[in-house]
Amino acid sequence: MSDHAEIVEVGLRDGLQNESIPVDATTRARWFNALAEAGLNRIEAGSFVSPKWVPQMADTDQVIASIRRRSGLSIEALIPNQKGLDAALAANVDRIAVFTAASDAFTQKNINCTITASLERFAPLVEAANNAGIHVRGYISTVLDCPYAGRIAPGNVADVAERLLELGCNDISLGDTIGVARPREIDSVLDAVLPSIPVERLALHCHDTYGQALANILQGLNRGIRTFDSAVAGLGGCPYAPGASGNLATEDLLYLLEGQGLSTGVDLQAVCRIGNEICETLNRRTPSKVAQAMQC
Amino acid sequence: MSDHAEIVEVGLRDGLQNESIPVDATTRARWFNALAEAGLNRIEAGSFVSPKWVPQMADTDQVIASIRRRSGLSIEALIPNQKGLDAALAANVDRIAVFTAASDAFTQKNINCTITASLERFAPLVEAANNAGIHVRGYISTVLDCPYAGRIAPGNVADVAERLLELGCNDISLGDTIGVARPREIDSVLDAVLPSIPVERLALHCHDTYGQALANILQGLNRGIRTFDSAVAGLGGCPYAPGASGNLATEDLLYLLEGQGLSTGVDLQAVCRIGNEICETLNRRTPSKVAQAMQC
Repeated sequence: MSDHAEIVEVGLRDGLQNESIPVDATTRARWFNALAEAGLNRIEAGSFVSPKWVPQMADTDQVIASIRRRSGLSIEALIPNQKGLDAALAANVDRIAVFTAASDAFTQKNINCTITASLERFAPLVEAANNAGIHVRGYISTVLDCPYAGRIAPGNVADVAERLLELGCNDISLGDTIGVARPREIDSVLDAVLPSIPVERLALHCHDTYGQALANILQGLNRGIRTFDSAVAGLGGCPYAPGASGNLATEDLLYLLEGQGLSTGVDLQAVCRIGNEICETLNRRTPSKVAQAMQC
Repeated sequence: MSDHAEIVEVGLRDGLQNESIPVDATTRARWFNALAEAGLNRIEAGSFVSPKWVPQMADTDQVIASIRRRSGLSIEALIPNQKGLDAALAANVDRIAVFTAASDAFTQKNINCTITASLERFAPLVEAANNAGIHVRGYISTVLDCPYAGRIAPGNVADVAERLLELGCNDISLGDTIGVARPREIDSVLDAVLPSIPVERLALHCHDTYGQALANILQGLNRGIRTFDSAVAGLGGCPYAPGASGNLATEDLLYLLEGQGLSTGVDLQAVCRIGNEICETLNRRTPSKVAQAMQC
């Protein structure tokens, strides 16, 4: 087992896109640079989607233009289509991400097509990115439960993951989008996925809606997973349960990983201070219990 | 491995004693009866301590007098001394609990004596309870970290646990009093304790101050522990980190245990509703993520 764990910081993308208060590009770039300074090496800068659909992600190109690049830092962005890919390439990102789900009902509501249609749409984008030397992450949402279709068969998840790798994706993020999973359920998904997907290509994206995220991550660690998605200050509520929490807070994840003896290269106190600033700007209380307890 | 897990509901004792708003005996008894009705079988009704020291625990005898007794229900109370034991016996409790720690610095601040002196004080009380056919729980606080003395050697915990069993205690609750433990640290405590204490006599009492409680409980489950302490609505803040959370919410624990395939006999929705009423009475927001998400 490796003694290093990698965090993919998704707060400025998956987090902010679910926050009601839009944040200007200058502020988002300052937060990005502070997170990179704190030692985070994989940070999503935003999405290249139409600002008509997701106004919180407007000016992602300006965010990226203000990033202080450094060796080892991966600037990442979500792209839905060719126009998004062109913008991401123009912005000189290190990784792009494409987004599908293990539930057709979810992709229909979210990106207005079936899973298969989404993969067909991504195929040329992934190929073009590969040709440009850009890594590609494939997001699979609703790996356990779909807010529209209910329980998802683990075999579906494995099938979508295999197809994403076949397209040329370098890694796969398995998302418990509504945060309902328990460790045994995460295990059943991994039982289905691990026979065909190398563990080092997998990440867990656990939402903390039911408070189970860290227990699920412990299960993932026990199965050999070493990459986890989280959001500073737990940015992003849960659109399916108003008032409930969404993304796992990076602060809480870091505290667990450190205790388990895994190196992350990230300064927890620095992340707590950035989270405090973000919460002040958004006029909200941090949902991170570590941040509450440490009172940085 | 047994497929049943037992919850010791400590909200009306360990929880309310740390809440600033005192609650009258009639209300506490109503909550107790509702929790028993929801299927909880081990519930602390309060403490027989001087109301000068802990006004929130005043009239614990009146709480117990209003409890609807039923088969399988264990009414439990903390006692610090002979006077407390006499009151607990007069109230006809099923279990008493005595309270010490793995840190002399903590017992000095909390009960004004060393660990050894506390055990000497408890010896005749435990013997008298045993003679009266009353079960005795021994609480060990600060099994990992002490707010006054820092890191505690796991061997100290094993030593105190052995001495409590020798006194005649039936079971031992291992408390991460300041809620800082991570699973690997819980493991190190269990490594020290399990060689001399049968696993079925152990409970974990994990505070959720750093959000790690459920991950720690998963570790405990993996080591065979099947008894866990928690508090409805996460009652009780953390006196060592103002504004931070204290007890693990029973709702969140139940959700984990159910997902792991363990039966508890407890109706989660009913516990959520009781938690809501408690939070309304205390004018606070529930810290339980499950209660927030389920919106019962």
